[in-house]
Amino acid sequence: MVIDAKDLYKEIDKYMDSEITIEGWIRNHRKQKEFGFIDFSDGTCFDHIQIIYDNKLKEFDDIQKYHVGSAIRVKGLVVSSPKENQKFELQARKVELLGDCPEDYPIQPKKHSREFLREQAYLRPRTNLFQAVFRVRSVASYAIHKYFQDRGYVYFHAPIITASDCEGAGEMFHVTCFDLDKVPIKDKKVEYNKDMFQTDASLTVSGQLEAETFALAYKKTYTFGPTFRAENSNTKVHANEFWMIEPEIAFCNLEGDMEIMEEMLKYVVKYVLDNCPSEMKFLDNFVEKGLIEKLEKLVNSKFTRITHKETIDILQKADVKWEFEPIQGEDIAKEHEKYITEYFDGPVFITDWPKDIKAFYMKLNDDNETVAAVDLEVPGAGEIMGGSQREEDYDKLIKRMDEMGMDKEELDWYINLRKFGGCVHSGFGMGFERLLIYLTGVENIRDVIPYPRTPGNCEF
Amino acid sequence: MVIDAKDLYKEIDKYMDSEITIEGWIRNHRKQKEFGFIDFSDGTCFDHIQIIYDNKLKEFDDIQKYHVGSAIRVKGLVVSSPKENQKFELQARKVELLGDCPEDYPIQPKKHSREFLREQAYLRPRTNLFQAVFRVRSVASYAIHKYFQDRGYVYFHAPIITASDCEGAGEMFHVTCFDLDKVPIKDKKVEYNKDMFQTDASLTVSGQLEAETFALAYKKTYTFGPTFRAENSNTKVHANEFWMIEPEIAFCNLEGDMEIMEEMLKYVVKYVLDNCPSEMKFLDNFVEKGLIEKLEKLVNSKFTRITHKETIDILQKADVKWEFEPIQGEDIAKEHEKYITEYFDGPVFITDWPKDIKAFYMKLNDDNETVAAVDLEVPGAGEIMGGSQREEDYDKLIKRMDEMGMDKEELDWYINLRKFGGCVHSGFGMGFERLLIYLTGVENIRDVIPYPRTPGNCEF
Repeated sequence: MVIDAKDLYKEIDKYMDSEITIEGWIRNHRKQKEFGFIDFSDGTCFDHIQIIYDNKLKEFDDIQKYHVGSAIRVKGLVVSSPKENQKFELQARKVELLGDCPEDYPIQPKKHSREFLREQAYLRPRTNLFQAVFRVRSVASYAIHKYFQDRGYVYFHAPIITASDCEGAGEMFHVTCFDLDKVPIKDKKVEYNKDMFQTDASLTVSGQLEAETFALAYKKTYTFGPTFRAENSNTKVHANEFWMIEPEIAFCNLEGDMEIMEEMLKYVVKYVLDNCPSEMKFLDNFVEKGLIEKLEKLVNSKFTRITHKETIDILQKADVKWEFEPIQGEDIAKEHEKYITEYFDGPVFITDWPKDIKAFYMKLNDDNETVAAVDLEVPGAGEIMGGSQREEDYDKLIKRMDEMGMDKEELDWYINLRKFGGCVHSGFGMGFERLLIYLTGVENIRDVIPYPRTPGNCEF
Repeated sequence: MVIDAKDLYKEIDKYMDSEITIEGWIRNHRKQKEFGFIDFSDGTCFDHIQIIYDNKLKEFDDIQKYHVGSAIRVKGLVVSSPKENQKFELQARKVELLGDCPEDYPIQPKKHSREFLREQAYLRPRTNLFQAVFRVRSVASYAIHKYFQDRGYVYFHAPIITASDCEGAGEMFHVTCFDLDKVPIKDKKVEYNKDMFQTDASLTVSGQLEAETFALAYKKTYTFGPTFRAENSNTKVHANEFWMIEPEIAFCNLEGDMEIMEEMLKYVVKYVLDNCPSEMKFLDNFVEKGLIEKLEKLVNSKFTRITHKETIDILQKADVKWEFEPIQGEDIAKEHEKYITEYFDGPVFITDWPKDIKAFYMKLNDDNETVAAVDLEVPGAGEIMGGSQREEDYDKLIKRMDEMGMDKEELDWYINLRKFGGCVHSGFGMGFERLLIYLTGVENIRDVIPYPRTPGNCEF
């Protein structure tokens, strides 16, 4: 029977001195006159298996011709390794070629630039770096589900195609069945009634407003799905398609919201450290020195809580020449986020933001100037989550929507939540790729999404 | 401290005869002269809590005015209940109104039609039926993740926006940043180079082809995400937006694929039965009589495996007047699926389908006529999953794509998987809503998706 490398590592004592069969790929191949060494991976775990074969095998000459990248099946004896950093190795008794690979295979055992690997995105999970990053992505996804499900949250699949630009959170992509060169137009207006949904449909920018409808039925809910921004931004942290987690909790105020944000983040970070030790060690060694220490420190820290006003006070008193002057009532810049996390030497919740720079649905504080919103700033990453208590007061919500000139009819269902057994409720949003950049040390969002969509890029 | 109804039920012995506080909603309210009974739910579990209050409470007159749908906070004593089907009840010591609800609240404690509730989709999770269905949806989602993650599969987020109609699986929605009344056209051609992705972009119909790239790096992978079909179908089982699970496994042939399909389905069904007992009991009582028995039977059955040819033989020999005659080499109809599962009194894998009615990527059998494909037919639901061994042979894949007149350049990366260490690999797809229809007994796909997208419907 064929076993996974993962199981072999897990139960190495059981398999030691036994004959086993493995199937996977040649990642490196060093040939000597009487011996050969195959660096083998089947992708079930980050760690490779060293295979040794010698010229006593009748297929010795054939094996020596096997190229890097080839798929092979190996029967062999598990023996303890003379090398210190290697638990065991496999003495081959039979090596079969399952799938050849040409010599011009793009992924050779050497350092490739990340730019080159983006062009070969369909092959890059076969490199150590991306093998690690995308397993961390998978394990972190599961940690998020596990955190919420263990605590009784209902997973809510927010609609992807939507007819409302609820939050005004960003530019939206249009979705249509029309051939773009044959859009029916009458009296200078698009005849949306002839399109699939008989309306101007778009890709969602956030599932939050819909998630609130679930919070007011299940008390605790969360989304985890793709969201979209039609923005022509070519930065390291922007993509047009990315995944978001948006929990929403009824009978929960901003304080409770922050407790959940802190607990959830620590849980996910710890889960990844515990379940991806080899991947994290590799990333610590080759991507961000001190990564594991940074993450362990986060898990063991107490997050500071200060108001936006206090933050500006600290920034204004700082002996720093700012590119952007910190001003009361205004937003803060990247340099300010960095300073404030260094100032407190750890994660900082900044609360009570000026209402004019925040969304319409955030709860107005008694001062009539600020809202019960929070951003979580994390050392080395800046803002990683944002949340708020939602305005539960029907009249105040209406007033704010009027002030902002919003279409109340389109959101009547959302407003009605305040009329039909409304209650204090809060939630937050976390961009999953932001979290992954923080978790892996990989700086570019293009390198934490399997097939990134950015302006001009829609390959695969 | 406020506790969740779920925790109260779980540890009722601990809380019996104690004073507790709960927050949630009035689902029903029966008033008597000296007493009142509130049917309370906080949404953390399917079971409600019966609250009794009497006229010794100073706010008795106020409480009597509280409408169905209102949010309340109740402090009370947990006491054992005189009723047989009720473990406990809560003797109120204080009842506070947190959020009022008008008398014309649409969700009253009576039977509403499903059509009416679709119009009130944002309120329907507050009804017993949808409270049950959407929790089952959440728990089944988690069961799927747990099944695959426990077995070392890597969760792969397939791209949603794509430039290739890989599978030809169905009509696709266009995605664009252009205002539809201002699409730039030059020489009668859309100037896609001016659009965000500089190409004709669409919403994915399947993540399978991309998932194969992960299988050939991680051995075991799965997708779980939204997929789209731009089809104008107004049936009970079609939606334009739905979620799919698409596992893909390297070094796995069709036999292995079927083992995983069978094990996974049984696991998910059993997980839901174990973790949603109240929901399933309700659905069994009010939606599909015998639902639990049907599902338990599936868990304990051995799935039959027969070929498409054998299936047609059986159908042709059957003493049935078919609407569609079963013919060798052709597809089978709903009535045939039904007959064959009844014939074997259980789930049936039908394998080795005529190549001309299946997709290009399926492995050609030695007979040159059939492909190593499989559909799983389940009693009462018909086809619930479909899978295949993928064509791993480079030359055969090229030949088949040429026969079908496909664009090889667009899929060069997919073809290259057969050149760069290719190997036997297989996978399958499961429409998540099909599974939910089977699990809940609810017949219409519109009732198992929180906010369904069907022709003409893009509300919320």
